[in-house]
Amino acid sequence: MNAPARQPRRLESYVCGGWTPGQKEGQVLHDAATGDPVAFIDSTGLDFAAVLDHGRRVAGPRLRAMSFHDRAGMLKDLGLALMARKEEFYAESYRTGATRPDGWVDIEGGIGTMLTFASKGRRELPNTRVLTDGEIEVLSKDGSFVAQHILSPLQGVAVHINAFNFPVWGMLEKIAPTLLAGVPCVVKPASQTAYLTELVVRRIVETGILPEGALQLICGSVGDLLDHVTGQDAVTFTGSATTGRKLKAHPAIVANSVRFTMEADSLNAAILGPDAVAGTPEFDLFVKEVAREMTSKAGQKCTAIRRVVAPRAQVDALVAALRDRLGKTAPGLPDAEETRMGPLASLDQRDEVRARIRDLQAAAEIVAGNPDDVRTASGDAGKGAFLNPVLLYAGNPFAAQAVHEVEAFGPVSTVLPYDTLDEAVELARLGKGSLVSSVFTDDPGVAEEVVLGVAPFHGRVLIGNRGSAKTSTGHGSPLAGLVHGGPGRAGGGEEMGGIRGVKHYMQRTAVQGTPRLLSAVTGRWIEGAEARHDVHPFRKSLAELRIGDQLITEKRTVTLEDVEHFAHFTGDTFYAHMDAAAARANPFFDDRVAHGYLIASFAAGLFVEPNPGPVLANYGVDSLRFLTPVYFGDTLQVRLTCKEINPRANADHGEVRWDCQVTNQNGAVVAQYDVLTMVAKVWPPAQAAG
Amino acid sequence: MNAPARQPRRLESYVCGGWTPGQKEGQVLHDAATGDPVAFIDSTGLDFAAVLDHGRRVAGPRLRAMSFHDRAGMLKDLGLALMARKEEFYAESYRTGATRPDGWVDIEGGIGTMLTFASKGRRELPNTRVLTDGEIEVLSKDGSFVAQHILSPLQGVAVHINAFNFPVWGMLEKIAPTLLAGVPCVVKPASQTAYLTELVVRRIVETGILPEGALQLICGSVGDLLDHVTGQDAVTFTGSATTGRKLKAHPAIVANSVRFTMEADSLNAAILGPDAVAGTPEFDLFVKEVAREMTSKAGQKCTAIRRVVAPRAQVDALVAALRDRLGKTAPGLPDAEETRMGPLASLDQRDEVRARIRDLQAAAEIVAGNPDDVRTASGDAGKGAFLNPVLLYAGNPFAAQAVHEVEAFGPVSTVLPYDTLDEAVELARLGKGSLVSSVFTDDPGVAEEVVLGVAPFHGRVLIGNRGSAKTSTGHGSPLAGLVHGGPGRAGGGEEMGGIRGVKHYMQRTAVQGTPRLLSAVTGRWIEGAEARHDVHPFRKSLAELRIGDQLITEKRTVTLEDVEHFAHFTGDTFYAHMDAAAARANPFFDDRVAHGYLIASFAAGLFVEPNPGPVLANYGVDSLRFLTPVYFGDTLQVRLTCKEINPRANADHGEVRWDCQVTNQNGAVVAQYDVLTMVAKVWPPAQAAG
Repeated sequence: MNAPARQPRRLESYVCGGWTPGQKEGQVLHDAATGDPVAFIDSTGLDFAAVLDHGRRVAGPRLRAMSFHDRAGMLKDLGLALMARKEEFYAESYRTGATRPDGWVDIEGGIGTMLTFASKGRRELPNTRVLTDGEIEVLSKDGSFVAQHILSPLQGVAVHINAFNFPVWGMLEKIAPTLLAGVPCVVKPASQTAYLTELVVRRIVETGILPEGALQLICGSVGDLLDHVTGQDAVTFTGSATTGRKLKAHPAIVANSVRFTMEADSLNAAILGPDAVAGTPEFDLFVKEVAREMTSKAGQKCTAIRRVVAPRAQVDALVAALRDRLGKTAPGLPDAEETRMGPLASLDQRDEVRARIRDLQAAAEIVAGNPDDVRTASGDAGKGAFLNPVLLYAGNPFAAQAVHEVEAFGPVSTVLPYDTLDEAVELARLGKGSLVSSVFTDDPGVAEEVVLGVAPFHGRVLIGNRGSAKTSTGHGSPLAGLVHGGPGRAGGGEEMGGIRGVKHYMQRTAVQGTPRLLSAVTGRWIEGAEARHDVHPFRKSLAELRIGDQLITEKRTVTLEDVEHFAHFTGDTFYAHMDAAAARANPFFDDRVAHGYLIASFAAGLFVEPNPGPVLANYGVDSLRFLTPVYFGDTLQVRLTCKEINPRANADHGEVRWDCQVTNQNGAVVAQYDVLTMVAKVWPPAQAAG
Repeated sequence: MNAPARQPRRLESYVCGGWTPGQKEGQVLHDAATGDPVAFIDSTGLDFAAVLDHGRRVAGPRLRAMSFHDRAGMLKDLGLALMARKEEFYAESYRTGATRPDGWVDIEGGIGTMLTFASKGRRELPNTRVLTDGEIEVLSKDGSFVAQHILSPLQGVAVHINAFNFPVWGMLEKIAPTLLAGVPCVVKPASQTAYLTELVVRRIVETGILPEGALQLICGSVGDLLDHVTGQDAVTFTGSATTGRKLKAHPAIVANSVRFTMEADSLNAAILGPDAVAGTPEFDLFVKEVAREMTSKAGQKCTAIRRVVAPRAQVDALVAALRDRLGKTAPGLPDAEETRMGPLASLDQRDEVRARIRDLQAAAEIVAGNPDDVRTASGDAGKGAFLNPVLLYAGNPFAAQAVHEVEAFGPVSTVLPYDTLDEAVELARLGKGSLVSSVFTDDPGVAEEVVLGVAPFHGRVLIGNRGSAKTSTGHGSPLAGLVHGGPGRAGGGEEMGGIRGVKHYMQRTAVQGTPRLLSAVTGRWIEGAEARHDVHPFRKSLAELRIGDQLITEKRTVTLEDVEHFAHFTGDTFYAHMDAAAARANPFFDDRVAHGYLIASFAAGLFVEPNPGPVLANYGVDSLRFLTPVYFGDTLQVRLTCKEINPRANADHGEVRWDCQVTNQNGAVVAQYDVLTMVAKVWPPAQAAG
């Protein structure tokens, strides 16, 4: 039933524009389930300094010349192309020990992450090459000296050193935000499963979608590569804490302040709430989740539940339920349809996990499974890295030091009892920083106490309950839109988190100057920058419109009759508009005032150009503030200025953001807001035939 | 004219609630200008593990129990108390070699930074204990599984290891954002000028404004303190790269993934634009700025201009102008009113600067000043650390490696000529990452090219021109609202930047769950969370109002007459509302549509409660989006839900943010926005006597 044995292939690195074998035959990699040799891996003889240089010089400028939307489109094309080839990846993935559901997380999860970044890039980023960050900081009273933070792509490369457990996702979740930022990547997969990564990179290169040099692959050791990193490069590492610490303290990384992101060991806890007693939906969800986290990917997930924290009174029921469920999950051949759990990645990994179980046994007793007695559902227990799930129990959890220190990277968890919710929180914290914790409860008070209690020690916290039973993505799933990483033992890194992850590959810079010069840098109009007055800006298509095009409108006086009329027409007879005594009793008003919505409506009446033209719609308003009350007899005037232009890549129009300032007869600003419109790229439309 | 010699005092550390001397007499510190002994410093015998523990256990919980506004108020009180004592600090500051203007930057600049953080904390943060970060991420199609990122204070301490040059600002700019975040601080000033820091901490402790343990001070070595830091602590370092690298690679910092922020050497460049030829205001500003940066604080600033990049044709005029200006700036006694430049911090520092000038001479020639011939305006050149400004010139700047590698931390700069603007950008980048660069130009094209070219290598870039001549804070001034730090050689750190700097001391955590449970954690209403319907929520004061209080309004049909009436009343006769054919030609509409402002106005008419009550004003609207066109005959209904409540600390009211959703007869959302109101804390007002 397993994939037929085949001649092991010699992996190559994709560097400096070509596929390059190492000078030696190198290490042999084995099929996790059959022990058959799959591939040889070696990178001897590569010129690693040249690899970095190739990325920086060949790909960097080309990526930076693209806009965020261009790069998002590139990621979308690439993601779709890979999705079309997914079955080939699944076939190779079985050799790593991954079942089809395991492979789904790795392959489709990885491609889905890339597609999410593509989508977020289009929806959440402007179509520019440089981002602004935060608001304008006004640095002088007269407004002649202001600042704006900007984010620009690093001009180096990102070196991604990945773990063996997710050879596809591990690469794609990192290169997607990096490429979206405009930074080329060098990927070094863990050797054990590098043949799958290599296959995916072959397909990526074949598509021709990425600019040459935007993605390079090193199969084998990175040699002296890290000796050549500079302050414009970034290095990320996922894997063991021991290796991670070595890399973090690497002389070139320290000397050049190279950005270093690490995601290492994590003793993630799942907490069963005191309300979630046996018989509740939350108890059942908890049992299912713990068992799933222990067995999916054979427990080889950095986010897996290692510590199962439960009310002492629920421990017997919990252990019984888990023992029952885990007993039905014997490991088997990954490509057999009935298999619920595959083997570990290698026999070495199994030895390692067994050794760590022995460490745990110093502080806990095994209550389900036997690490030395392998019972498979299929496959040869003598050749494949099979291991049955092992559940331990530590009755004195605060004394069980090993449980809070030792990670057995396999289907292994330890149950820890608690007597008070404070204790549950404290046990989760004893992990000294984890990627994720979860709490299963239907009680808002428990959710609040646990989440706020453990949050400073975690990058992610999941609340499980009946309300999300069908929709929750579960304890162990990092998501593209959420940060992934954790403080302390978990490595102190942060990845993904949507656009946050893109910014990890950009430099934030505060730029100071006059509004005129700063506006030239950011491409956005700033209060105080130059303005141009010619035809009404609503008569201009995107082809004609420029930042700073400005309209100063006619004036309009707001009368008592206007306010009364508006109040009765809309039904908004709020006392501040209608009742002089009540308005005067209000701390903000000296008398009856005009409605804010009336001011905005009159403003639109003043600035709108009524005839058909390139302005297609007003789709929204941002940050509207009513700053000065408008009393009867006050005269309004509007200044409307083109602030930001965002042409859409795949449409005949784009977004235009207008600065709208409404002043009264004294020059006081009564309202300030951004008006958001859709504007045609050309006008009249070229295709307007009928 | 100098301060009278006094008996040197023995500095003490403020740790674990008391002032504690070291066990030894320790190192003697000398007055920079007179050489007189000022103080002894030693920290032998302190229990550094206990210091960390004291901060974590005694101060941490108290600080975290305060809200952001509470802590901002605390910083404001402290800042004002220190400002009242500033003259005492100036008197001590002279001994460090600082002139009165130098002291102003350090003392009033430092206190001003604290006050800015106080103000930003009130204005830019909610009055809560936990921050939300970014928008809700909807993780399931039915909205039953969502996520929100939150930020919560680290539960450790921040250890701030500071440089000698700004003993007051260096402490205050770091403790202000740390304390605002809710994290206790341990400050270790550089020994040379620790007596001034110690004096300020004495005054801080005397005010009793900070909770005990929120600020501890170590005068002398930090001993084994760093061996005890954990993943919940943070360490910042400002000083030499050599020391910084050692700390960064410290075993406990690496092993526990301790947040480490470093700000080290920086070979900042200032670029004279090609347009800024002799005779222009920008040329004159440039000369003034370079001279000022060389001489203020005797050039002992991490942001000082070390490399002066100028068009080759302007070099002669520039050097002549600088030689002239610097020649008039002889060093003198810091407390003498006529002194324009003080001494270096110590004789050792002067030896160090002289050695570095010799290094620079390998690549550049001295064109003004003589490091070995000290000519003071006042003071004894044999006793004080006086040094006259030294200007160098490197005619072949790309070959002048030392100029791009060696920092002479004193009144020393090197002029580098460029032939093209590309070369100017490239020269700035040769610093391999700097805190700041500046470009002096009045040409928007030059500003854009230089700023975008150098931005990835810098934390801050200043554009100088005639328009901000009087208001610019200058090349060398970090500002509380702007990030301070730089990539690569500058250390890779980032400090301040307004609220960004507060977040450096908080952990970001993605929290996932149902809207109901997530809302309990964040204290904000989330779409899908529970809602309560009783009395109209506009009848409730802050004392009564709860998150989730909701109003479902009556319905209102929008008619042709309404739209025509509104159009003529407001003057907004935009074609999409008035002209069926033109509306249909528009890609977004099938027919004439209602005005967005009409929808918002009718919505207010539906949700407002007209009688005098606790709702005082609608002060704004956020993130208004018109999502579905409203055609004539469509019927609108509003759902208004209390989303966020922010009581103000020093007022009888607070801000309430309402989720406002307008739907049509098909349940489609036609408009979604936040309505912002001011609401009284109690109603009727307690003091409402008449």
